[in-house]
Amino acid sequence: MPMVKLVEYQEASSEARAVFDDIMATRKTDWVNNFWKVLASHPPTMRRVWESVKQVMAPGALDPLTKEMLYIAVSVTNACEYCIHSHTAAARAKGLTDAQLAELLAVVGLANQTNALADGYRVPVDPQFVPR
Amino acid sequence: MPMVKLVEYQEASSEARAVFDDIMATRKTDWVNNFWKVLASHPPTMRRVWESVKQVMAPGALDPLTKEMLYIAVSVTNACEYCIHSHTAAARAKGLTDAQLAELLAVVGLANQTNALADGYRVPVDPQFVPR
Amino acid sequence: MPMVKLVEYQEASSEARAVFDDIMATRKTDWVNNFWKVLASHPPTMRRVWESVKQVMAPGALDPLTKEMLYIAVSVTNACEYCIHSHTAAARAKGLTDAQLAELLAVVGLANQTNALADGYRVPVDPQFVPR
Amino acid sequence: MPMVKLVEYQEASSEARAVFDDIMATRKTDWVNNFWKVLASHPPTMRRVWESVKQVMAPGALDPLTKEMLYIAVSVTNACEYCIHSHTAAARAKGLTDAQLAELLAVVGLANQTNALADGYRVPVDPQFVPR
Amino acid sequence: MPMVKLVEYQEASSEARAVFDDIMATRKTDWVNNFWKVLASHPPTMRRVWESVKQVMAPGALDPLTKEMLYIAVSVTNACEYCIHSHTAAARAKGLTDAQLAELLAVVGLANQTNALADGYRVPVDPQFVPR
Amino acid sequence: MPMVKLVEYQEASSEARAVFDDIMATRKTDWVNNFWKVLASHPPTMRRVWESVKQVMAPGALDPLTKEMLYIAVSVTNACEYCIHSHTAAARAKGLTDAQLAELLAVVGLANQTNALADGYRVPVDPQFVPR
Repeated sequence: MPMVKLVEYQEASSEARAVFDDIMATRKTDWVNNFWKVLASHPPTMRRVWESVKQVMAPGALDPLTKEMLYIAVSVTNACEYCIHSHTAAARAKGLTDAQLAELLAVVGLANQTNALADGYRVPVDPQFVPR
Repeated sequence: MPMVKLVEYQEASSEARAVFDDIMATRKTDWVNNFWKVLASHPPTMRRVWESVKQVMAPGALDPLTKEMLYIAVSVTNACEYCIHSHTAAARAKGLTDAQLAELLAVVGLANQTNALADGYRVPVDPQFVPR
Repeated sequence: MPMVKLVEYQEASSEARAVFDDIMATRKTDWVNNFWKVLASHPPTMRRVWESVKQVMAPGALDPLTKEMLYIAVSVTNACEYCIHSHTAAARAKGLTDAQLAELLAVVGLANQTNALADGYRVPVDPQFVPR
Repeated sequence: MPMVKLVEYQEASSEARAVFDDIMATRKTDWVNNFWKVLASHPPTMRRVWESVKQVMAPGALDPLTKEMLYIAVSVTNACEYCIHSHTAAARAKGLTDAQLAELLAVVGLANQTNALADGYRVPVDPQFVPR
Repeated sequence: MPMVKLVEYQEASSEARAVFDDIMATRKTDWVNNFWKVLASHPPTMRRVWESVKQVMAPGALDPLTKEMLYIAVSVTNACEYCIHSHTAAARAKGLTDAQLAELLAVVGLANQTNALADGYRVPVDPQFVPR
Repeated sequence: MPMVKLVEYQEASSEARAVFDDIMATRKTDWVNNFWKVLASHPPTMRRVWESVKQVMAPGALDPLTKEMLYIAVSVTNACEYCIHSHTAAARAKGLTDAQLAELLAVVGLANQTNALADGYRVPVDPQFVPR
């Protein structure tokens, strides 16, 4: 039950429609997911967030699949249902295998465990870890 | 200021010492970081957590550097100072470059932003994202 | 699916009923939301939490709408579905506009992003920021 | 580096001083920790929070040591440095042993791990777990 | 809507089936909850996590009910719907009363409040709290 | 201990220097805080994040002080030490009073408490709260 009405392409403002167009052109698809339909209710946010996503998730020093996996790791840690679904689907579309997903979630689970242990015991940072 | 005394190898119980030995052998180093010295105060936890780390972080469907990057993504999202330092150092040792670290943190920052937007707007999960 | 049975006014203990009465009188309404019906299962918690809400959310140095917006910011960051819904509805009732909600969520999203960047890079606190 | 000046007993307002007195009387000590000195800068918050702490942490269906352990579990999960220190110290004063602390942190670590796994895999709630 | 197909006992690999058997034998039941059916899709994770759960949740310096309560405290703080349900049910089965659950949640709520206050005010750790 | 070297204006790339210039011009100051010196190590991130901050924090349907308060609410909930300091200082500079800060933190504390209670009790969303 979204907080605002989902804005479909046909009813979008010209500013939002331009973002829809860029999303579909960049992704080479004619479909846009609900996240953007919700943001289309506030075109400045839609455009700003899309520009960030487009820039950050583009291939660079890290490949797109690795970036999607990092996105999943964050989304799981934040328990963000929508983002877990959308980015796992995106990672699948980029080739994520069952075995990779299983290992990814195993690392995320383990990291959440040792984060808690390190915080709870107040482990002092080793001087060897501090960048000079 | 740790909650318990750090246990050095020399003063460790034989059970903890065996774990220290395995950590050093597995990592091909003669140095062990504070996290394990703290856990050495409770050998069953030390051994159990080490066995998990050893199994989960080993090369598999994902390579060790990708796993370290996922670990950083979780640790940053949890704001775990110790873990951010230790796993960034570990990733550096496995070859993480400045450019990769910058992109990793950019993805982590972006994901935390869009997680909040998706949660705040209560975006409904697209049926296309649901695994059949 | 709540953990305990929702307690309606008619079946509430006299202690819980007094809190129901005060909620309705304070809010000038004859309707009470599920949060309080759940807490009515443990009247000491219900009364204590209501007294806190009544005191903290009253007009003071900050106006009630600003307080509701802060409540939303926390609830979104915690991904608390119930609280996002209840406090966005409360803010709407206090006059929150579509444009204000959009800007509020944009700030909340941005803050979650830069929190992650500041944590991940371990940015040292500037001396200028430290209160004397 | 606190956000506000710590208020010592001698300089406290009469309202804050009454809370200081009640804290010391309730705890049978002549010492008050920094948390309350900070809150003494805003006596209504100090009094309200103290009344909550006094009521919630009193012996009841759960004993005070169990309550302190629950407090630690939350504080570790939130990575709240001050609260981890203050409540571990409080639990120690109530008899928490080294072995109990180690098991407590082991549970907290494990729970953070399985929380992430359950969230990441989107495990459906078993009907058997739903209260009728 | 889980990310992977739930694996029932009949279709499980022999490695997963051995874990199912151990879960049922340890818990003296013929029923296994969805969490394990999901993990059965990746037997190494299933076995590793089950070994951890079995070791950590066994009676020791803390009794099993206290451990379940700690698990609930973490799960509530992380807003993990599945884990809140599964561990509240487990605690109920171990004897948790309505009054104990109410006090547990009151402590968890209070701790989340004072965690935020301690973090927001940046309360300095009292030297008395630091373990020597 | 930052993860990367802080980049001062004099040693910044021309791309980063342009962002430094815009920050100082926008804020009408000759001083830039450490967050930007850290991001200057990766100019695309620096520029992208600054453009977002500049757009989102500008006066609009919400005034700049309200936006800073929302930023603090998020930062406290995430326990981000740097952000709590930087945004409390920014809010102070925009006129935040002691009384307003105290009420802000009281709301943030309360919201974290009731978020936990709503999550722990699994309170069902009232139909009245759902936007049509």
